[in-house]
Amino acid sequence: MIKVGIIGGAGYTAGELIRILLGHPDAEIVFVNSTSNAGNKLSAVHEGLIGETDMVFTDQLPLDTIDVLFFCTAHGDTRKFLEANTLPEGLKVIDLSMDYRLEAEDNPFIYGLPELNRRAICKSQYVANPGCFATAIQLALLPLARNLMLNDDVYVNAITGSTGAGVKPGATTHFSWRNNNISIYKPFTHQHLPEIMQSIKHLQSSFNSDINFIPYRGDFARGIFATAVVKNAVDIEELYRIYREYYAEDSFVHVVDEPIDLKQVVNTNKCLLHLEKHGDKLLVVSCIDNLLKGASGTAVHNMNLLFNLKETTGLKLKPSGF
Amino acid sequence: MIKVGIIGGAGYTAGELIRILLGHPDAEIVFVNSTSNAGNKLSAVHEGLIGETDMVFTDQLPLDTIDVLFFCTAHGDTRKFLEANTLPEGLKVIDLSMDYRLEAEDNPFIYGLPELNRRAICKSQYVANPGCFATAIQLALLPLARNLMLNDDVYVNAITGSTGAGVKPGATTHFSWRNNNISIYKPFTHQHLPEIMQSIKHLQSSFNSDINFIPYRGDFARGIFATAVVKNAVDIEELYRIYREYYAEDSFVHVVDEPIDLKQVVNTNKCLLHLEKHGDKLLVVSCIDNLLKGASGTAVHNMNLLFNLKETTGLKLKPSGF
Amino acid sequence: MIKVGIIGGAGYTAGELIRILLGHPDAEIVFVNSTSNAGNKLSAVHEGLIGETDMVFTDQLPLDTIDVLFFCTAHGDTRKFLEANTLPEGLKVIDLSMDYRLEAEDNPFIYGLPELNRRAICKSQYVANPGCFATAIQLALLPLARNLMLNDDVYVNAITGSTGAGVKPGATTHFSWRNNNISIYKPFTHQHLPEIMQSIKHLQSSFNSDINFIPYRGDFARGIFATAVVKNAVDIEELYRIYREYYAEDSFVHVVDEPIDLKQVVNTNKCLLHLEKHGDKLLVVSCIDNLLKGASGTAVHNMNLLFNLKETTGLKLKPSGF
Amino acid sequence: MIKVGIIGGAGYTAGELIRILLGHPDAEIVFVNSTSNAGNKLSAVHEGLIGETDMVFTDQLPLDTIDVLFFCTAHGDTRKFLEANTLPEGLKVIDLSMDYRLEAEDNPFIYGLPELNRRAICKSQYVANPGCFATAIQLALLPLARNLMLNDDVYVNAITGSTGAGVKPGATTHFSWRNNNISIYKPFTHQHLPEIMQSIKHLQSSFNSDINFIPYRGDFARGIFATAVVKNAVDIEELYRIYREYYAEDSFVHVVDEPIDLKQVVNTNKCLLHLEKHGDKLLVVSCIDNLLKGASGTAVHNMNLLFNLKETTGLKLKPSGF
Repeated sequence: MIKVGIIGGAGYTAGELIRILLGHPDAEIVFVNSTSNAGNKLSAVHEGLIGETDMVFTDQLPLDTIDVLFFCTAHGDTRKFLEANTLPEGLKVIDLSMDYRLEAEDNPFIYGLPELNRRAICKSQYVANPGCFATAIQLALLPLARNLMLNDDVYVNAITGSTGAGVKPGATTHFSWRNNNISIYKPFTHQHLPEIMQSIKHLQSSFNSDINFIPYRGDFARGIFATAVVKNAVDIEELYRIYREYYAEDSFVHVVDEPIDLKQVVNTNKCLLHLEKHGDKLLVVSCIDNLLKGASGTAVHNMNLLFNLKETTGLKLKPSGF
Repeated sequence: MIKVGIIGGAGYTAGELIRILLGHPDAEIVFVNSTSNAGNKLSAVHEGLIGETDMVFTDQLPLDTIDVLFFCTAHGDTRKFLEANTLPEGLKVIDLSMDYRLEAEDNPFIYGLPELNRRAICKSQYVANPGCFATAIQLALLPLARNLMLNDDVYVNAITGSTGAGVKPGATTHFSWRNNNISIYKPFTHQHLPEIMQSIKHLQSSFNSDINFIPYRGDFARGIFATAVVKNAVDIEELYRIYREYYAEDSFVHVVDEPIDLKQVVNTNKCLLHLEKHGDKLLVVSCIDNLLKGASGTAVHNMNLLFNLKETTGLKLKPSGF
Repeated sequence: MIKVGIIGGAGYTAGELIRILLGHPDAEIVFVNSTSNAGNKLSAVHEGLIGETDMVFTDQLPLDTIDVLFFCTAHGDTRKFLEANTLPEGLKVIDLSMDYRLEAEDNPFIYGLPELNRRAICKSQYVANPGCFATAIQLALLPLARNLMLNDDVYVNAITGSTGAGVKPGATTHFSWRNNNISIYKPFTHQHLPEIMQSIKHLQSSFNSDINFIPYRGDFARGIFATAVVKNAVDIEELYRIYREYYAEDSFVHVVDEPIDLKQVVNTNKCLLHLEKHGDKLLVVSCIDNLLKGASGTAVHNMNLLFNLKETTGLKLKPSGF
Repeated sequence: MIKVGIIGGAGYTAGELIRILLGHPDAEIVFVNSTSNAGNKLSAVHEGLIGETDMVFTDQLPLDTIDVLFFCTAHGDTRKFLEANTLPEGLKVIDLSMDYRLEAEDNPFIYGLPELNRRAICKSQYVANPGCFATAIQLALLPLARNLMLNDDVYVNAITGSTGAGVKPGATTHFSWRNNNISIYKPFTHQHLPEIMQSIKHLQSSFNSDINFIPYRGDFARGIFATAVVKNAVDIEELYRIYREYYAEDSFVHVVDEPIDLKQVVNTNKCLLHLEKHGDKLLVVSCIDNLLKGASGTAVHNMNLLFNLKETTGLKLKPSGF
């Protein structure tokens, strides 16, 4: 059994990670650290855990009792922690914050998008888990980049569930405001753009156009539905072939002929992709569950890779459907 | 034109009051007081006001410039204000808090449920506006009390929109939690029960059973849908007659033969009532918009009565329908 | 009083038209025709009308008793009707279907977008009311076209409420499917594109780029939220000036400095527009209520123009806000 | 491996059954019969199955290839089928319709509520799966009946998700109507009352009061949240003890000290129960997922019992949480 520790245990990604790991046949949660909730039951904080576990949060960090540490910390806090503490040698780390996603001289983390870096992840110790929008958008675009087909501006619109905004209540997650409402935020400047650009340039170094990304706040809790439009001269059959070839070895990405909708993937670790050509424009539609494929599901996927498990272990989840 | 001042202007009931008064032909908002928002546009705080008004919040209270003052204050704050300040003689007051709803020796306010106290309201100066649940439930029960028919326990379930919980964000108004969720709170002990009991006893002093009231949190923003069940030996035609007689002079209450649903009243000042008999049980269904008939709509209704306007003035609102 | 007849009275746009007209000070509904519902109360079909009217549907068409006839018919049915029947001379017509929106030799209808054709509408007899998406998108783009600034592909994403799909139940309006779901339909090929192109070319005949329009199905009932992105070299202050100048005489369009959200316009006849520049890309955000500004509100707006009323008559609706 | 056949495969309970069985370690779906969908992919009809299975519906019924047959048929159709066809000897049957829930001379089915009839189910061949409301309400009341504590009228209110109304679209499942709406249907007369009464009388034959049940239509897709109120003289600690004793051997029912909410159980096979005493009134709150514990989850639970598997096999589902 893989012994797991979780730090930043009171947030949404930690909650989802716990929900997954409680059903994972080869992993065992040793501790869930949360200073603010120390002593409280996990089930008092995370929806859905009543009857699943009686575990309580701890303010302790018994790092020598675990094999892998998940950081479900706020952005900036993983870096602070790692600069202030020395980890046991050999302890594997999966960081769900954005602190180590961008490559740098002194960054020992591998960017943990399995569909881009599976082999490298398998051999690594530190994994920087991708962002949720970044996952949906990269999976839509990487096959094009691999085939050097991103030669013009890309227009991306993606709508996310409220869980993407975290557990802390605020004006834009107030039910009275968000229910039946639609809005955008950080158009063209969302913080996930740099990691998207980094991955695209790895595959197509010549890429020098814009990714014009408009994030929408959706009036639902789970999921990301993204559309990407880019000029492309290749015909649709060939494009489908290219996408299916790119994802041939990937368990969680499915390239689908028919139109797709968000609830096809809710409560699963899947990404569905659908392609259409209209004139010289290629439309790619991409759906994920932001808490699973967009966060904690991929974190467990990465754990599976780090420990040489079958990548789907613990991640064949019953779809919610509704 | 009736000159209006509003204190506690940043909350939901103030916002709805402003939305109504901007379309009221005989009233004019002179000031909206909010210390926390002084200098901000109303439209920056209250959804829907862009293009309706450029007015800003003030921290001033020019009470001598107005004819009526609406308190949209938190519970407790109206009393504090009135104990600390002297109002201009003749200034009329409509209080949306619960501070003066219960009768007491030193309470100069009339309980402002027009369907119970219309004549007294017309002659009064100070009006205590009823609570939202209290309105829906009283309108369901008062005809029975008037006819001395409440002679057993009453079982009331009522589900409210999130706006009933106010503008301050919190765990139970977080979209991620509340969306698609149902829960109850304060069963049997909700703070609106005393005002309901007070009104019932005015009409049927012999009433000494329980009103077993379970409030539900709904996953919608506007409205209250209530059911009340009580033993009753009278046949349904007679009951309909009694209800229609009770509300014969009331513009906003409609007794309906067909089953009703919440959206029949959303964005209106109406209350719909529907009756059924099953064996010895009478079922009364009652629907209101919690922000209108349950709060600011009735506040304007009371203003109309205080100033001898037709009671529907400014309150014939287009139903939302959807 | 303007005497009004409505044909196709059982659909959503008819329902909303009725809700508006019941509060219109200068109009009176004479009949609402619906063969399938003849004899039923309007309030049995259209949500929100209980207590507002006791009128019933008729299968009669007493055209000589009315001043204006609204067609709320399915697409194709207005044309069929007009080809099969002769209207009384002088009877004004407002058609909410798409049958007469595109100009043609034998098309006597004026395209009824007041912000484009107000003067012509005032002098006309037959008005073709614009489509809902078409309204939101044109209002976002027309100031650019007027200033000859549409010189590259435009990327439009717009999400609509379920009422846009009509009253007939189906797979994509089934609550179990649509709730918390997002999907697209008819990307790049939506039937509103021709009327959008027609209007743009009237203002900027040189326009020969694509409008790449992706319509989204939203999980809410009312409203359209649209974003348009196009390359533009002008600075943002100048763009705001141009938009405000374009809409200077229009009562219902508001150009807003701050970010906007859909519920700012729900249950109103307003359109809000917001602009941002990011590099060489101009982002225009546009919000309307699809049943009001996108359909029946504009229909009444057009009626007001046809009868020389103030254009806002009967259309100053209390915003829903929530 | 248990070989499974499903008849009535296009409905919601069949879809959920398939979703569960695809992850069940000891069961294998051999065929899914649907005459209307024969030849179509399961994933084209049932949300969430893309990437899970490529199986297609069949109009064949190879009953000799299976060990157990699930009827996901409309009410009435199971009986019609069994009267017209002879099943292979030894074939086990689990019927999700209501055709065989009520005991009768010629009814060979056992009522399949494991918390009432586990031992009998283990030894049976034909199981009548309980209704969704019936499950939520029985689990709330059975411990009282077992202890002869139901000696007065019971007041039950329960709100269900739209999936309870089935896949066929209609007026009350139209998104435009149901979204943000609340209504009731069949008050006091719901078709699940007889099976509830039957079970209660088995445990407390003296019961001769009413169960006053008001079913609510909720504006969400999955789940049932029920409250039951009944006069009771026992103190709360004793009541908790009684409930915990009743469910001591049951894997899926959890008696919880803290208030509960619907999303605690969504996408799980759990039932949560919470108790409160207020004066002489006992309040029992009960939550289930209507498609799982209220239908297909219990169907699989029953299959596990019929085949002597651990009862939780394949039913430890990751909660959705949001």
